[in-house]
Amino acid sequence: MASQVNPPRGMRDFLPAEKARRERVRDEILRVYRAHGFDEIETPVVEDSDRLHAGLGGDNEKLAFGVLKRGLTRDDLQAAEQPLDLADLGLRFDLTVPLARFYATHRAELPAVFRSIQAAPVWRAERPQKGRYRQFVQCDIDIIGEPGIQAEAELLVASLATVDALGLADATIRINDRRLLIGMLAGFGFPAEEHDAVLITVDKLDKVGPDGVVAELAERGSAPDAVEAFRAFLARPQTLEYLPFGEAAIRKLLPAGADDAVVASLVAIGETVAAARGEEEPPLVFDPFLVRGMGYYTGAIFELAHPSVPYSLGGGGRYDGMIGRFLGTEVPAAGFSIGFERLVDLVEPPAGVGGAAVALVHDTDAPLAALLALQSALVARGDRARLVKRAKNTKLQLEGLAEQGFTSFAFLGADAPASVDALELRPLG
Amino acid sequence: MASQVNPPRGMRDFLPAEKARRERVRDEILRVYRAHGFDEIETPVVEDSDRLHAGLGGDNEKLAFGVLKRGLTRDDLQAAEQPLDLADLGLRFDLTVPLARFYATHRAELPAVFRSIQAAPVWRAERPQKGRYRQFVQCDIDIIGEPGIQAEAELLVASLATVDALGLADATIRINDRRLLIGMLAGFGFPAEEHDAVLITVDKLDKVGPDGVVAELAERGSAPDAVEAFRAFLARPQTLEYLPFGEAAIRKLLPAGADDAVVASLVAIGETVAAARGEEEPPLVFDPFLVRGMGYYTGAIFELAHPSVPYSLGGGGRYDGMIGRFLGTEVPAAGFSIGFERLVDLVEPPAGVGGAAVALVHDTDAPLAALLALQSALVARGDRARLVKRAKNTKLQLEGLAEQGFTSFAFLGADAPASVDALELRPLG
Repeated sequence: MASQVNPPRGMRDFLPAEKARRERVRDEILRVYRAHGFDEIETPVVEDSDRLHAGLGGDNEKLAFGVLKRGLTRDDLQAAEQPLDLADLGLRFDLTVPLARFYATHRAELPAVFRSIQAAPVWRAERPQKGRYRQFVQCDIDIIGEPGIQAEAELLVASLATVDALGLADATIRINDRRLLIGMLAGFGFPAEEHDAVLITVDKLDKVGPDGVVAELAERGSAPDAVEAFRAFLARPQTLEYLPFGEAAIRKLLPAGADDAVVASLVAIGETVAAARGEEEPPLVFDPFLVRGMGYYTGAIFELAHPSVPYSLGGGGRYDGMIGRFLGTEVPAAGFSIGFERLVDLVEPPAGVGGAAVALVHDTDAPLAALLALQSALVARGDRARLVKRAKNTKLQLEGLAEQGFTSFAFLGADAPASVDALELRPLG
Repeated sequence: MASQVNPPRGMRDFLPAEKARRERVRDEILRVYRAHGFDEIETPVVEDSDRLHAGLGGDNEKLAFGVLKRGLTRDDLQAAEQPLDLADLGLRFDLTVPLARFYATHRAELPAVFRSIQAAPVWRAERPQKGRYRQFVQCDIDIIGEPGIQAEAELLVASLATVDALGLADATIRINDRRLLIGMLAGFGFPAEEHDAVLITVDKLDKVGPDGVVAELAERGSAPDAVEAFRAFLARPQTLEYLPFGEAAIRKLLPAGADDAVVASLVAIGETVAAARGEEEPPLVFDPFLVRGMGYYTGAIFELAHPSVPYSLGGGGRYDGMIGRFLGTEVPAAGFSIGFERLVDLVEPPAGVGGAAVALVHDTDAPLAALLALQSALVARGDRARLVKRAKNTKLQLEGLAEQGFTSFAFLGADAPASVDALELRPLG
């Protein structure tokens, strides 16, 4: 008896039904973004190690799988100071670092404003756990070269249209702006060099609550005055009056003195999204404590939420500093990453197009030439057709075929007709 | 000035036009095989090192990229005897080893006869050269669990239908059987233990000619009588009379004494393929010296040829010993690998479906809300729509948009209408 044979630890195979489902979701996402003017690109799954470890990937860099140099001798192994000395390539841990590299390579061949889609696997050497895999698909949509809010508006309109198309009505976008967060922290008295660290704590607000955030800030040794100002702001009395997304709603949730221009840009994004959707109000909610994990965001940030699940289904924002890093110039950019692996489990993708799916269930004495001629004739008229040897338990077999998506069948024996006109198809399931 | 930024050595990026083209070819291949009853599956891009290096991959095993173990210390590096000691995973170098592993993992969940498609990248650390890449797409179709020629016939019918659909009429299949090759070598007097090595030389017949093959066999020290028998057979007088594919044509090209059952199975494959295609003669050519590189073939072998190119566009055969290797049992299997990277360069894939592609060419003072409302309205009616900032050289810009596949455009300024009914679209290109 052979021992259990499994895919590599923390990774998955996809059997036919699940693979078909994933492809249908992927196709639908790509279809809607393509309709909104985005183009799919592809990069190799590996990048040079020094690009992957250039500091653009945050904590994810530590999770990169390294690829061994070829032709290493035992002396090379002895001489290595650390594992990375032996790896000249690594599996990408996200699609953003490869996009920055791609843009640096091909800038001259791309339009001035470049709208890209990538829907492709990434790899992270994380401790495997339920729902967390070492290979998973990311789906990133980016607009490079557009400094204005047109980029944010296009990303949100196309992303909302995508989740609409996947059957998730009532999706909303939580939105904020990194500059408002920074302004808020500065206003409370946190010094600039602490902002990144404080934001990491603020990001936990949903999880640990206001008291938890305040306690963690005090613990990390922030100035007591700043912590107290933050505490008082979190504890301020709030009106429950509903305000539609717009300047008043945003102002109400921010401390006094927020940057007018930034608030105006969020308002403009909301107005544009509403107009594009032909709705009175955009499906946007201002969240003054939305942080987004990655350190590279520089402007508007957003997350996609849906009432059916407590976690976000995607998110993104403006990250002007990063795409140009390998070029040594600043290139404006904004992106949205749709949570492919979460959506796949949540939605019922549109059924594939096409005709019937026919199972030609045949005895072993059915003439092979007739079977294949029938199959070809069915395919020629637009059907799907599979030859299936008749099993002992025919009832069970037909149930299984129905489950696999076959819609009709015929029994064929030694007298199988060679013409599809003489074929008696019966419905399945 | 930043230095040149490139993808990893020997690997490629795909820009929008090329990516779209590749996806259309891939979609068409999958569509036709799916119609013939095959199902797509997916496995992780890496497999455990000991699976990749279990001897199923022939020379390709040496070309596997190794993936470094995580958490290695300097002591681990010092203690390693060879690079492979440091790699617990490797990038797959083909799709057959992963299929064998997949089948061993999921056998209980799969139908008794399992028809799989994989169209996915593989990696080989080859010396980069023109037209040869370190990451490339393979497209494998396999039938597992069918011992009879139904498998070969289905593979050939579906594969010929696929190249037909891609616009390559007049494709032919060169066919042979490993058992006939072995019988031929045994008949000439080569001992069994030499057969594999002799086949490697026979495989070069197209390249080095009969004299080259005979010289190489003599050089490698094969028994002179056997080499002479082979030489005489290669030099025998041949009739130029044309014979359609069938027993007479096959017998004419083989030495006397060829295995009747094997010849009959090739004849039956031909008859079945002809019947399925509704043709008098199958597009098959018997080639008694067709070898196929991999050592794992056990029965019929075939290659796809087309008059427009001197190289094969795919191939495959029966390989009964291999799929069950990780299970410790023998599982019948036959496969066909369609040469995706070669086909992509050769064919004009069917155009994508869908409506018009509209470029909304706008001035910077065009109201953003109107632009996005127009885009959404166009998308809603089935078009593709992209917002494009008007360039100084408008003529050049419109030419570029036509090249990118846009079919109509509108100029939009400060007075852009918000309704698609008021939009004046002009044809492009």
